[in-house]
Amino acid sequence: MKELKVGLLGFGTIGTGVVKLLQQNAEVIRNRLGAPVRLLKIADLDIETDRGVKLEEGLLTADAEQVLSNPEIDVVIELIGGYEPARSFVLKAIANGKHVVTANKALLAVHGEEIFAAAADKGVEVMFEASVGGGIPIITSLKENLGANRFQSIFGILNGTCNYILTRMTNEGEEFAAVLKDAQQAGYAEADPTFDIEGIDTAHKLALLVSLCFGTRVDFKQIYAEGISSITSLDIQFARQFGYKIKLLAIGKMHDNGSIEARVHPTMIPEHYPLADVDGVFNAVRVTGDFVGPVMQYGLGAGMNATASAVVGDVMSLARSGRGNGEPRSYGYGCRPDALQELPLRSMDDICSQYYLRFTTVDQPGVLAAISGKLGEYRISIASMIQPERRDDGAVPIVIMTHEAAEKDMRAALAEIDQLQIVQSPSHLIRIEGSLD
Amino acid sequence: MKELKVGLLGFGTIGTGVVKLLQQNAEVIRNRLGAPVRLLKIADLDIETDRGVKLEEGLLTADAEQVLSNPEIDVVIELIGGYEPARSFVLKAIANGKHVVTANKALLAVHGEEIFAAAADKGVEVMFEASVGGGIPIITSLKENLGANRFQSIFGILNGTCNYILTRMTNEGEEFAAVLKDAQQAGYAEADPTFDIEGIDTAHKLALLVSLCFGTRVDFKQIYAEGISSITSLDIQFARQFGYKIKLLAIGKMHDNGSIEARVHPTMIPEHYPLADVDGVFNAVRVTGDFVGPVMQYGLGAGMNATASAVVGDVMSLARSGRGNGEPRSYGYGCRPDALQELPLRSMDDICSQYYLRFTTVDQPGVLAAISGKLGEYRISIASMIQPERRDDGAVPIVIMTHEAAEKDMRAALAEIDQLQIVQSPSHLIRIEGSLD
Repeated sequence: MKELKVGLLGFGTIGTGVVKLLQQNAEVIRNRLGAPVRLLKIADLDIETDRGVKLEEGLLTADAEQVLSNPEIDVVIELIGGYEPARSFVLKAIANGKHVVTANKALLAVHGEEIFAAAADKGVEVMFEASVGGGIPIITSLKENLGANRFQSIFGILNGTCNYILTRMTNEGEEFAAVLKDAQQAGYAEADPTFDIEGIDTAHKLALLVSLCFGTRVDFKQIYAEGISSITSLDIQFARQFGYKIKLLAIGKMHDNGSIEARVHPTMIPEHYPLADVDGVFNAVRVTGDFVGPVMQYGLGAGMNATASAVVGDVMSLARSGRGNGEPRSYGYGCRPDALQELPLRSMDDICSQYYLRFTTVDQPGVLAAISGKLGEYRISIASMIQPERRDDGAVPIVIMTHEAAEKDMRAALAEIDQLQIVQSPSHLIRIEGSLD
Repeated sequence: MKELKVGLLGFGTIGTGVVKLLQQNAEVIRNRLGAPVRLLKIADLDIETDRGVKLEEGLLTADAEQVLSNPEIDVVIELIGGYEPARSFVLKAIANGKHVVTANKALLAVHGEEIFAAAADKGVEVMFEASVGGGIPIITSLKENLGANRFQSIFGILNGTCNYILTRMTNEGEEFAAVLKDAQQAGYAEADPTFDIEGIDTAHKLALLVSLCFGTRVDFKQIYAEGISSITSLDIQFARQFGYKIKLLAIGKMHDNGSIEARVHPTMIPEHYPLADVDGVFNAVRVTGDFVGPVMQYGLGAGMNATASAVVGDVMSLARSGRGNGEPRSYGYGCRPDALQELPLRSMDDICSQYYLRFTTVDQPGVLAAISGKLGEYRISIASMIQPERRDDGAVPIVIMTHEAAEKDMRAALAEIDQLQIVQSPSHLIRIEGSLD
């Protein structure tokens, strides 16, 4: 096996992790591959900041062309993030016959088809293990090891920021706003945390996973994404009383009629599931295939080192594959482009779920009858209920767990209930996944 | 990509699963690969039994040579199990230039070096994802995705029979013998369960994992293996009082001085770890690398379908790799043969651990002082203790959790304690792993 030469675009946190890993573990990598991986060039607009790694003279440049058009470079690692110039750079690298390794889920969720098609035309690979779940090898597992399965469902905890916040709210009884502030100070949340806490980052990742699992195109904009900013510690406490934990879950499902679900929202899952014990900045994915059954993977979902591990793992895979014969080892979406389907995505109206509902009502007779009556009108049946003691302000929380119901009916019922005089503030709804298969 | 032609040796449970999978999911496999996988020949001594799958005329033969020496066959799948004739057949397939896919951990744990060397000489691959953890893609993860890491430790629940028995003992308070009998009737345990319950199967798998993680030869016979037959439901209950669950754990560790640990025994792990929630016939592996941090994978550890998924996943990987260029995609132990080390394996005497100890004593003053005195003589310090009420027979159980101590000291102390007049039956010892990194 011959030396593999790589160029790096983007020398931020993850890029620095990749350089450190290639330096510190050069011997490990050479022993596992039988040949070294050599970093030929790093391009970043900022060539001044000290990243704490020692570089050979001339390695760092502000000119991306020195990576993209360097005839010696076999593999371009894209760690710029975002849509542009990442998209143009990746397309140029492909056009120049280079394999690409990227951690950029936003880019692939939105421009994946264009990029994968360009790679297939050129006979090069686009590897993106680092784009979902950090160090968790879920992309390779779906494309390769579990590739003989028809997948039924995939569930993921894919955003470390959200999981960190929910974990602290769960363990410490703190409210969302306070924990978010702490997380920002500790570096676990961005100054503008919208992408993370509103579920957009998770939806980017889910778009990729759903395409890989079900062999279908997914329009990222059609994925329902609801974040965690409305979760209260009160809901977390009630969930525990029923034996559940609340996680921001990415959910993908394949139905017998060939329609699929792809949605992101806070979800109550039974606390005895291993997925419920995935705490802090950890990520996890659970996928169920027709032969393999359920498989779960768990690891650090982000961070310099775990992401670098996934990036370099992809580089090593490229070193092993039959590079240069013009035949890519695998397809972008893990499936022949002409076999990629256009499976219909169910609208949220048409999904069925169990629900956790929390109402804030006045303390007077007939309240429960009024609420349960409205639910009944929409064929929503109650599985269990908690009505704790009245609070100081005279408001009474009523918590109801329903049997499975249609989202359309649930929303209609809640709209009517929220109009009732006895209801003091808008009702809270959290979907429940009682079984993860 | 061209059609891949495979031959199958062994048409038992797993073999039948492979045939079913190749038939039922032929389209999925073709779409993911871009080319079909075609089964050309199946060899088994029993060509009469109906396995419930329909085969083309002439596919099944009692003559292994029709697989091994068939010039059309690219890949030989070995699912015979055991040492011979599996070893001879695998070596012959390699000599004939065929890639090999096997689920045979016993074969590789004992004859792996010979087999991998033969494959390297011939430029063919030996794939064995199915040999450890059934459908869990741990082998590929260690060799490829996480391959840039130096691994610090690996922990595995690798035997479904043992985990099923321990789970039922935990959930139902039943004793080992009763649950084993049930498990045998339900088909979760063999008529002769020794290999499983005494930890030998787990040790076979650990030998492979340790070689892959640490890049070292391991003499399987040197691995300490202690099974679960002496675990009582009383120990399980006490463990829970301290916040632990008992699992049969395979443990591999790398020490800073380059020595390694490889041991299999019942182990108490904190119940809030995801690994502690791995119940029933599920398997799980947790590995920690210097960059990726901890990664856990979880899935069905055995059974026709999950194992078949792993076997066919390996076949698909071979279809993707640069077959035919005489350069294998990866090394058997995931590391250049000349870089494979001879790291010293620590003897059990030299390991350090926390311990759970249960003594059965007479009910009289001074008992605790005598026991704790003996422990103190050997520098073993007590972390916590439970002494429940005396039992009907007058015996008093005393349960002690120790701080970290040397195994050598612990055994010496217990030998002396068991000689004391006040001790009524041999003391029970279970090792504790309080942190899995």
